[in-house]
Amino acid sequence: MSYHMTPDEFRTQGKRMIDWIADYMGSVGDYPVLSQVDPGWVQSQLPASAPLQGDPFDDVMEDVERIVMPGITHWQSPNFFAYFPANVSGPSILGDLLSSGLGVQGMIWATSPACTEVETRMLDWLVDMMGLPDSFLSTGRGGGVIQDTASSAALTALIAARERATGLTTNREGATGNLVVYTSTHTHSSLEKAVRVAGIGDAQLRAIEVDENYAMLPDAFEAQIAIDRSAGLIPIMVTGTIGTTSSNAMDPLRTIGEIAAREGIWFHVDAAMSGTAMVCPEFRHLIDGVEYADSYCFNPHKWMFTNFDCSAFFVRDRETLISSLSVLPEYLRNKATESGAVIDYRDWHIPLGRRFRALKLWFVIRHYGIEGLQHHVREHVAWARSFADRVVMHPDFELSAPLPLNLVCFRHTAGDAMNQHILDSVNGSGEMYLTHTKLDGNTVLRMSIGGTNTTELAVNQAWDRIVAVTDHAAV
Amino acid sequence: MSYHMTPDEFRTQGKRMIDWIADYMGSVGDYPVLSQVDPGWVQSQLPASAPLQGDPFDDVMEDVERIVMPGITHWQSPNFFAYFPANVSGPSILGDLLSSGLGVQGMIWATSPACTEVETRMLDWLVDMMGLPDSFLSTGRGGGVIQDTASSAALTALIAARERATGLTTNREGATGNLVVYTSTHTHSSLEKAVRVAGIGDAQLRAIEVDENYAMLPDAFEAQIAIDRSAGLIPIMVTGTIGTTSSNAMDPLRTIGEIAAREGIWFHVDAAMSGTAMVCPEFRHLIDGVEYADSYCFNPHKWMFTNFDCSAFFVRDRETLISSLSVLPEYLRNKATESGAVIDYRDWHIPLGRRFRALKLWFVIRHYGIEGLQHHVREHVAWARSFADRVVMHPDFELSAPLPLNLVCFRHTAGDAMNQHILDSVNGSGEMYLTHTKLDGNTVLRMSIGGTNTTELAVNQAWDRIVAVTDHAAV
Repeated sequence: MSYHMTPDEFRTQGKRMIDWIADYMGSVGDYPVLSQVDPGWVQSQLPASAPLQGDPFDDVMEDVERIVMPGITHWQSPNFFAYFPANVSGPSILGDLLSSGLGVQGMIWATSPACTEVETRMLDWLVDMMGLPDSFLSTGRGGGVIQDTASSAALTALIAARERATGLTTNREGATGNLVVYTSTHTHSSLEKAVRVAGIGDAQLRAIEVDENYAMLPDAFEAQIAIDRSAGLIPIMVTGTIGTTSSNAMDPLRTIGEIAAREGIWFHVDAAMSGTAMVCPEFRHLIDGVEYADSYCFNPHKWMFTNFDCSAFFVRDRETLISSLSVLPEYLRNKATESGAVIDYRDWHIPLGRRFRALKLWFVIRHYGIEGLQHHVREHVAWARSFADRVVMHPDFELSAPLPLNLVCFRHTAGDAMNQHILDSVNGSGEMYLTHTKLDGNTVLRMSIGGTNTTELAVNQAWDRIVAVTDHAAV
Repeated sequence: MSYHMTPDEFRTQGKRMIDWIADYMGSVGDYPVLSQVDPGWVQSQLPASAPLQGDPFDDVMEDVERIVMPGITHWQSPNFFAYFPANVSGPSILGDLLSSGLGVQGMIWATSPACTEVETRMLDWLVDMMGLPDSFLSTGRGGGVIQDTASSAALTALIAARERATGLTTNREGATGNLVVYTSTHTHSSLEKAVRVAGIGDAQLRAIEVDENYAMLPDAFEAQIAIDRSAGLIPIMVTGTIGTTSSNAMDPLRTIGEIAAREGIWFHVDAAMSGTAMVCPEFRHLIDGVEYADSYCFNPHKWMFTNFDCSAFFVRDRETLISSLSVLPEYLRNKATESGAVIDYRDWHIPLGRRFRALKLWFVIRHYGIEGLQHHVREHVAWARSFADRVVMHPDFELSAPLPLNLVCFRHTAGDAMNQHILDSVNGSGEMYLTHTKLDGNTVLRMSIGGTNTTELAVNQAWDRIVAVTDHAAV
């Protein structure tokens, strides 16, 4: 007796699921982008307890339609312009499906050599494709690894930075309240979270002021280091961001990097969304100075058509990273590890277990080729520029930040109430979804252009919708 | 012009991938279990750089066969008895495929209400199904969340414990070197990693001695607390393990919990593998006293047929957890969050982004039903007992630890060299895969029985193979 789904049942249901997803791909633009359900509605549709006997698969899929779909915010819609993209694509879904089907757990090399070695090679490919420094290559002293998110990558970088600065004594003795970390006031919140988690304390986090373009002021960074050193504190890490979440601001990597190198401070670069643009040589001026980085991260799961989770994290000195995170219990000892000839990625991040995420990245790069990725990135940037042109030409709207790539920050000049009205109206209609930020105290709309299914038409319609809801606004 | 895979191409290639996986499911037992490739072989088969133009999908699948498959260690093989299981199943693969296809990012409720609410309901189902305390229910002050791994869950528990003990001042001021964490000498290495990451320092980690069954000695724990308190240190957390990785030892939760409650110490329970057995009421005596736990974790991605990653983590007081991990930047502010009526799971773990992992859990529970899960767990435990009986009856073998569930720890009485010979021989043959540990200084073989494709026949054959390789051993 067995309750398992047989391979033949899987064959049948799997093909139906493929059809379902293909149909969804073709119709995702027809759904209200932002889910319109009230809090608690989805839960109220699910039984209070698990079934004693199994249910037919058809019933489950009916419940997907009835209960799940109304509660979906359609990130893959051509009309999704919120946050940053979280792209999927056909080859990525199939790579991830293969990973699920193989079901290997790549915590160490021996538990599936391909899981480790395809990953190592893919991360080396990315160094080359994205114009990143050779120091990140696994063939030298560096290397890359797939993390779940840029948040985890930042925490990992911080632990390595902390242990490099303290000669591994923090791992042993604990943090001591005198370690200082630098970000800008516009750095992602994950850095503040990491500083807390790592026991450093956010009182020791220095959020350096930004210039008129929301980029870190290196002079202020340098001045703060001097203040901290004279107070007996130890600077351990600075983060430079390539494309902040609020406004896609670009920190000046070269100047920050020079200061960090001179001061012996770990330099982490967070290029979570914008890093994908580096597949195009014409955008690489934005990462000028990246050769100073001790670590670097960008998320193929944002703009590079690779579904979540896939955050590419590189370090220049893998030994520092590994020595900061390695704990080797007896039950993981094995000849390959002890030979020193292999990578055990469990020592490159917090989790022990890991799935074969490199497959989807491999499938994506093989499917698109470098030229295909370049094509779509260039299209997105061009559409963003064309959207920004309309903003500039409209008498009632203005740009709120420079447009280095594909995030347009703009606002109606009538003030916060009008901009909130625009947000509420277009999102409430279900016709499109965009989100906001605050810049210099003002509510600013963020038009993030870079989805797999984004089209020029959808971008144009979005602009028309935004303008339309301001027409009779009583705000 | 578009390089994207069209829905129709996805339909065609997706069905071929389903066929490929169904074929793999039917033939997984035919592969050498442990990959036989040498370090570097897989990498050497991959080009040094990414293709400029995209490749046909057929070429990619050919490379999967030629390059990836020889480098796979087949975790889903009926002859895989190593580590702990990392099970997949048909419904789980399909749930995960749906998650990839929908491509939603559930960092906050608003970004897909169903992603949050199905998860909340599934975790509530698990509380009920597994006989866990009502204090973990989201309908009260507790709640559950899916983490990637038990390692991350342990770190999350530790941060909450740290902040509860220090009134959120560690987040602000940093760790102070006087916080103490308790495990046993057999607790999983992830706790040591977490203590380092959290800035507590492993000099402040007390690995309490174990009894003859490798379970924590509560008296020793209590004595150590007194020593630490008298030294001016602050005990913040103790971990009890239900099924240690080495030998599946069961820490006495009730006694540890009573001490922890009396002393005001956060009590984390790690039931990563063995937690699945709690679906059967007859095994719940093993978690007697779990109502003292402040947090609890078990991994459906180990024994419960749900593919990686899916670690179920529960807390009794979600407010403590959330206040320890929440950072709210402007660009994530929204009405639903501010209403307080919804859960934003980003505040329940380290990563910000999250995929819709509850789908695969829902699909598994719906497919198997409670009775189906019970059936397979009971079978695995019965087969483990029968394997242990053979060990006991054989004059040259002995059990090395009690057998509470499905992990048989045993050894040949001729000593370490013989046991190493057994390991090397059976693993090298590709016919099966098992791993080892050390108990009381001796090399011990671990026969872990609990795979989706495990059969009674495969377990019997494994025993025969083990005995056979000892016959002419010159050790």
